[in-house]
Amino acid sequence: MSQKRNNSYAKKVALPPGSLIHLGKASETGVQLSVITYDADRFERRTVTTSAEPSALVRPGSVTWLDVNGLQDTGLLEAIGGAYGIHSLTLEDILNTHQRTKADFFDGYVYFVLKMIRYDAEHKKLDVEQVSLVLLRDMVITFQERPGDVLEPLRQRIEKSKGKIRHEGADFLFYSIIDIIIDNYFLCLEDVGEEIEQLEERALQHPEPGLVPLLQGVKRELLSLRRAVWPLREEITLLLREEHPLIKAATTPYLRDLYDHTIAIMDTVESFRDTTSGLLDVYLSSLSNRMNEVMKVLTIIATIFIPLSFITGIYGMNFVNMPELQLPWAYPVILGICMAVAVAMLIYFRRKHWL
Amino acid sequence: MSQKRNNSYAKKVALPPGSLIHLGKASETGVQLSVITYDADRFERRTVTTSAEPSALVRPGSVTWLDVNGLQDTGLLEAIGGAYGIHSLTLEDILNTHQRTKADFFDGYVYFVLKMIRYDAEHKKLDVEQVSLVLLRDMVITFQERPGDVLEPLRQRIEKSKGKIRHEGADFLFYSIIDIIIDNYFLCLEDVGEEIEQLEERALQHPEPGLVPLLQGVKRELLSLRRAVWPLREEITLLLREEHPLIKAATTPYLRDLYDHTIAIMDTVESFRDTTSGLLDVYLSSLSNRMNEVMKVLTIIATIFIPLSFITGIYGMNFVNMPELQLPWAYPVILGICMAVAVAMLIYFRRKHWL
Amino acid sequence: MSQKRNNSYAKKVALPPGSLIHLGKASETGVQLSVITYDADRFERRTVTTSAEPSALVRPGSVTWLDVNGLQDTGLLEAIGGAYGIHSLTLEDILNTHQRTKADFFDGYVYFVLKMIRYDAEHKKLDVEQVSLVLLRDMVITFQERPGDVLEPLRQRIEKSKGKIRHEGADFLFYSIIDIIIDNYFLCLEDVGEEIEQLEERALQHPEPGLVPLLQGVKRELLSLRRAVWPLREEITLLLREEHPLIKAATTPYLRDLYDHTIAIMDTVESFRDTTSGLLDVYLSSLSNRMNEVMKVLTIIATIFIPLSFITGIYGMNFVNMPELQLPWAYPVILGICMAVAVAMLIYFRRKHWL
Amino acid sequence: MSQKRNNSYAKKVALPPGSLIHLGKASETGVQLSVITYDADRFERRTVTTSAEPSALVRPGSVTWLDVNGLQDTGLLEAIGGAYGIHSLTLEDILNTHQRTKADFFDGYVYFVLKMIRYDAEHKKLDVEQVSLVLLRDMVITFQERPGDVLEPLRQRIEKSKGKIRHEGADFLFYSIIDIIIDNYFLCLEDVGEEIEQLEERALQHPEPGLVPLLQGVKRELLSLRRAVWPLREEITLLLREEHPLIKAATTPYLRDLYDHTIAIMDTVESFRDTTSGLLDVYLSSLSNRMNEVMKVLTIIATIFIPLSFITGIYGMNFVNMPELQLPWAYPVILGICMAVAVAMLIYFRRKHWL
Amino acid sequence: MSQKRNNSYAKKVALPPGSLIHLGKASETGVQLSVITYDADRFERRTVTTSAEPSALVRPGSVTWLDVNGLQDTGLLEAIGGAYGIHSLTLEDILNTHQRTKADFFDGYVYFVLKMIRYDAEHKKLDVEQVSLVLLRDMVITFQERPGDVLEPLRQRIEKSKGKIRHEGADFLFYSIIDIIIDNYFLCLEDVGEEIEQLEERALQHPEPGLVPLLQGVKRELLSLRRAVWPLREEITLLLREEHPLIKAATTPYLRDLYDHTIAIMDTVESFRDTTSGLLDVYLSSLSNRMNEVMKVLTIIATIFIPLSFITGIYGMNFVNMPELQLPWAYPVILGICMAVAVAMLIYFRRKHWL
Repeated sequence: MSQKRNNSYAKKVALPPGSLIHLGKASETGVQLSVITYDADRFERRTVTTSAEPSALVRPGSVTWLDVNGLQDTGLLEAIGGAYGIHSLTLEDILNTHQRTKADFFDGYVYFVLKMIRYDAEHKKLDVEQVSLVLLRDMVITFQERPGDVLEPLRQRIEKSKGKIRHEGADFLFYSIIDIIIDNYFLCLEDVGEEIEQLEERALQHPEPGLVPLLQGVKRELLSLRRAVWPLREEITLLLREEHPLIKAATTPYLRDLYDHTIAIMDTVESFRDTTSGLLDVYLSSLSNRMNEVMKVLTIIATIFIPLSFITGIYGMNFVNMPELQLPWAYPVILGICMAVAVAMLIYFRRKHWL
Repeated sequence: MSQKRNNSYAKKVALPPGSLIHLGKASETGVQLSVITYDADRFERRTVTTSAEPSALVRPGSVTWLDVNGLQDTGLLEAIGGAYGIHSLTLEDILNTHQRTKADFFDGYVYFVLKMIRYDAEHKKLDVEQVSLVLLRDMVITFQERPGDVLEPLRQRIEKSKGKIRHEGADFLFYSIIDIIIDNYFLCLEDVGEEIEQLEERALQHPEPGLVPLLQGVKRELLSLRRAVWPLREEITLLLREEHPLIKAATTPYLRDLYDHTIAIMDTVESFRDTTSGLLDVYLSSLSNRMNEVMKVLTIIATIFIPLSFITGIYGMNFVNMPELQLPWAYPVILGICMAVAVAMLIYFRRKHWL
Repeated sequence: MSQKRNNSYAKKVALPPGSLIHLGKASETGVQLSVITYDADRFERRTVTTSAEPSALVRPGSVTWLDVNGLQDTGLLEAIGGAYGIHSLTLEDILNTHQRTKADFFDGYVYFVLKMIRYDAEHKKLDVEQVSLVLLRDMVITFQERPGDVLEPLRQRIEKSKGKIRHEGADFLFYSIIDIIIDNYFLCLEDVGEEIEQLEERALQHPEPGLVPLLQGVKRELLSLRRAVWPLREEITLLLREEHPLIKAATTPYLRDLYDHTIAIMDTVESFRDTTSGLLDVYLSSLSNRMNEVMKVLTIIATIFIPLSFITGIYGMNFVNMPELQLPWAYPVILGICMAVAVAMLIYFRRKHWL
Repeated sequence: MSQKRNNSYAKKVALPPGSLIHLGKASETGVQLSVITYDADRFERRTVTTSAEPSALVRPGSVTWLDVNGLQDTGLLEAIGGAYGIHSLTLEDILNTHQRTKADFFDGYVYFVLKMIRYDAEHKKLDVEQVSLVLLRDMVITFQERPGDVLEPLRQRIEKSKGKIRHEGADFLFYSIIDIIIDNYFLCLEDVGEEIEQLEERALQHPEPGLVPLLQGVKRELLSLRRAVWPLREEITLLLREEHPLIKAATTPYLRDLYDHTIAIMDTVESFRDTTSGLLDVYLSSLSNRMNEVMKVLTIIATIFIPLSFITGIYGMNFVNMPELQLPWAYPVILGICMAVAVAMLIYFRRKHWL
Repeated sequence: MSQKRNNSYAKKVALPPGSLIHLGKASETGVQLSVITYDADRFERRTVTTSAEPSALVRPGSVTWLDVNGLQDTGLLEAIGGAYGIHSLTLEDILNTHQRTKADFFDGYVYFVLKMIRYDAEHKKLDVEQVSLVLLRDMVITFQERPGDVLEPLRQRIEKSKGKIRHEGADFLFYSIIDIIIDNYFLCLEDVGEEIEQLEERALQHPEPGLVPLLQGVKRELLSLRRAVWPLREEITLLLREEHPLIKAATTPYLRDLYDHTIAIMDTVESFRDTTSGLLDVYLSSLSNRMNEVMKVLTIIATIFIPLSFITGIYGMNFVNMPELQLPWAYPVILGICMAVAVAMLIYFRRKHWL
């Protein structure tokens, strides 16, 4: 178990609060820093080495997006924290990848942490990664656990200067990143929805035992989506209400739009949860039906033939004095009686709607 | 899957917020614009082509109702948005047919989106269509996904000048449209209620496996009704509280009436949900009862005849030294014993209330 | 279905709001108007024809109670509405017998609508009727769907001048009517409680399939009681808070008392609902137990006799070379073995607590 | 049923509000009044007859506790009510033993009603009795349904002058009475907890049908505890917030302590309810397991011997031309085949983990 | 039962509020007092005997942590309470180990009580101990039920001067103690999570009856975690809002961090509870599947061989006139028919997907 706890909370318990310990998996490719700088006219995208001085990245008048991929280099994080005035508790939150979605407001910056969820089509499961956003003056820093994200379309949109993003400030970039992450929840929900539909069909057609763990899997996926989305509602409300100087009034309708999306996702998650618990009922009642059918077949066969076997048993007895045995028409009569019993039983079963 | 996603959210993820992408099904008949203009004395109803200049439609002093059927022509929408000062996020909401019921207040207009639900008697399911309402000065614009709606009685009421509608402003028209849509929820509920009653009877009389998917279907219908109605309560409260200049005080009691209707619908939906989950219990206990009955028949038959067969088996053995076989009265005695055993069993079963 | 909808909402959908359409069943005996006028000294009770001029009924200084039985005569209702200044939406609410319990406050009057519930001992079900109360200056008007109500004791109390009612104003009469209707909920709950007790006993003693629909019936009764009572709490709070000029401060403690009763009823309804769902569990586990018992009997009989039948089968074979058959003591030995097997099985079953 | 309703609400329905009708069982021993008067120095306890003048009991500067046991003498209650200025609605509440726990504040007094619950070890059920407290200046009046209560330790504590009670006013006595009643809830919970533990053990070991009604009984006990405790939280908060002149600030921390106890009881009740519903699952799954076991035994026996019986049946046939019958080694070979089939079956069952 | 109640509430019922009675188990090793005193430069840790004068422990300018292990010596507690001005109700709360997590604010100190939970790997269950904290000026007193705790890492952190704790005041120590206790909840949750995973696997693979009590055990653990954590949220909010002079503003972000942890724990507990109830469903459906499988085997065997046995029974009858018996090819034909029947049955079962 000690092995298992390497990535867990146990490492942290003995440490003072604010200690920087990375609780997630280390990215294999090392920490990657990429910087995008843009204003209405210019766009620049480059990769910086970890040795670069972070504070040299910001260019006043432009918006700078520093994207940190990989959290294992706590020294780098401390350097970034120092350069931009990020509180040690915030740095601790960035590193603790068991963080709950939340918004935190500090004098010089806004901190927002949420889950980036993608549907991993290959393994048929959701891939959850924590993304931390720090909104500074003219700058957004994002911290991701590993390379690869859902933000690429946003980067291309900035590059190709689509929409109003090139004309807006860092708070609009901050909003856009959250927006694209939340939009991906919809895609995940669509995939989960398809899984549920397939399970429903199977539960009705072929109620095999293998369905239950699949159902549990879908439930777990919905649970993790729910845990990601549920606090979002509250936290986006906080962004709306706090009126932090770094978030301009013009961005407010967009945040409200985000809020609406969150509610819509929650709605869908809840109705999927409803459907999923209904599915177990479908499955169990299919199972009961099968059992009923099996029992009926057994009962029909046994109920017809057990009495008949008794009749043949009687005339298989070896008593000396069994006058029927001598009668020439006895055998066909007995066969006839057997047939009559069988037919009577079948009629009885049909009356009972068992056939 | 990529095929499937054509109508889905995937199209939108890469796009900047406020991009106009129609997420629903394209109406086959093209976009149809119909205009009704009326005041206390005059009533005019015409169909306009999409090439008409939208701003020419309003006639001061009269109330104008512009009804847009079909959302696929985003260019037209942008034109309408431009002509009447509708925010791009509102236009995006109009096009996104996965919208949750909501009211949004802007400086020049009020936006309200809700689901129009009809019971499709042919396919025995609910037909859900999104309707967006924009209340402007002296004008209401409605956006529907496809032609055909539940508003026809309202149009006729206006034409025949029934009720006070011809003497009231655009806000009363706005209210009347929402009112007639919500009134249709009651009709849907009645149809669903009838479905539930039929299912209940069948669950008790003929607990067939086919019932469970039907039950799931009703549940899903109730869920979609619930999702349509649940936010209505809150949003109508918003209409009441916001005191937007476009909504006159005289319309308030009507909105309160709408609120009461919403509560009544929610009440019914909830009690239907209760009944529906009760139905599964009814079905499963019917099934258990059937199983019990089947088992009893099997047990009675087997329990009577298996011991008897053993008795006949004994006297079917070929031992040389079986003195009973020679006794002349042995055969009838054995037959008598068999009968006695059977009768004893039957008495036992009757005592146990199995017969 | 169109037939069915005659009494339903379909009639209303095409009509403007405030249209007077009676949605309930028409009282067969026609509309009956009865008037009670009293003050500390006098008491008068008479029946008026529908042709009487309503406004002539009020006598200043006295309290007048106009009781309208039957709602089908919308003309009369409009006349009453006009004479006493009742808003058309209130009249519509009076006619719509699917109304949820609510209090509405207008300038000249207070409107209160609730359900009058009686236990119909003959048909063993609850009889629900909607009662609307309008509190005016020195007057209360009640609207009932049909003759026959639970208010008779109140009328006699007024006539016999019991309690303080003859010394109080119209608001106390208003309160007293609501109070006696709510007191009847307690009686209904007692009857439902008795039904539940009987069902519980039967579920334990004789778990027959017929119980489940009875249980569903009780559930439905509790649901309709719940729907009647649930909003009462809120609405009585409204009566307390609104401080409408027609409700005197001296009546407030009585309304608070009403509030307490409402809470007590809700408490009982909820605990009955709890018990009722428990009942299904009792029933289903009784059923499972029965099944278990049936299976045990089958298993014991089959498990004892099937192996014995095999033994007799062996010595029923016709092989030429079966030396045992010749041995003189073989037959009793085999019978002994059979007995020993049976006894061993019985001991085994007793050990397993099956016997 | 009319018989049954003698103790019920039916008596009350026809009566004006504030009518004094005792709804509980009449105490058999007649109404007993006992008076305790104490201050820091003196303590006096006496029994008064009902003919005594109540107002003569109070001694200024001392605390007087008048304990009324038995509620059937409504004349006496009216006398007490008149002497101490108790509102008729309060008197009605005292008599109505279906009262929900509540606090009521009047100008001259505070009314508190709650349930006194004791575990009746003999009948293994909870004994619920309603206690009403009226806090007056320098006096507390308690009304109980019948003699015998849980307050004796408190009386002895006062007499032996333990704790600070002799130095405090009537509000501390008021608090102390409520406190000791609530402390008894803990004892009841312990007893219920023990019952649950015993049931749990039995559900696992011996899943007999008799368990379900016992479980229902525990559920009902928890429900009645819950109904007693749930409103306490709110009502004690009221005592804290109302700042009634009769409750001194120094008593507030004690009331807050009471509040904490209430929360703790609610917590325990809720977790017991959780455990109890879990118990039914345990019981039902035990039952399913038993059924499974029974079915396995039947299946193993039947599956082994039915094919063997068929084999013996073949060689029991009387065909003339059955060459095997003549072979000398045929009989032992067939016996061997039978044994082999049985062994193969047993191996198959062991592979399936049925043995 | 009286025996059992020695450690229970019964002891307390007869006593005045504020009486010091220890309700938990007495620590076997006697009460141990240990004192840690530190400032930025110095660190001192010593064990004091119970005879020491408590008030001599505090050294102004330093932070003193007095740790009381064992609660049985009520005299000592009274002495401590007197020396530091702790209210008698607080002392009572310290002794009552059934206390719910709560924060209480007094003029000179802050009282906080919570549960310290460790996973006892040996007995595979949670070990719950109550810890009371009293925050005074420059001092924290902790009261534990018995020696051994989860605070050792904190003591070492202070001694080795790691983190900022040596530079902060008593309120930071107060926070740090609560923090480390809550961090241990995460560890417990990880262990419970592992238990759940193992149970899930077993429920799917080997649905044995022994699983249900294990499941109930996990449920109970989650319930006790939940009861410990649930009130924490509220109480930490109280610490944040109360602005008690002993809690400095600089400590607030740390308390907010604590709040976030509490929410995260609650989230996990709730999702574990969800999973656990899902597990019972998995188990029960596995059981049903097994039953189904058993039934199928029985049905297949019985359905094939019972008819065949009937056929052999026919030709085992001893009628004189059975012409088939004489035919030379009759025996192989009958064997062929038997085989054909068996094959037909097998095909039928395969069609039904039973094989």
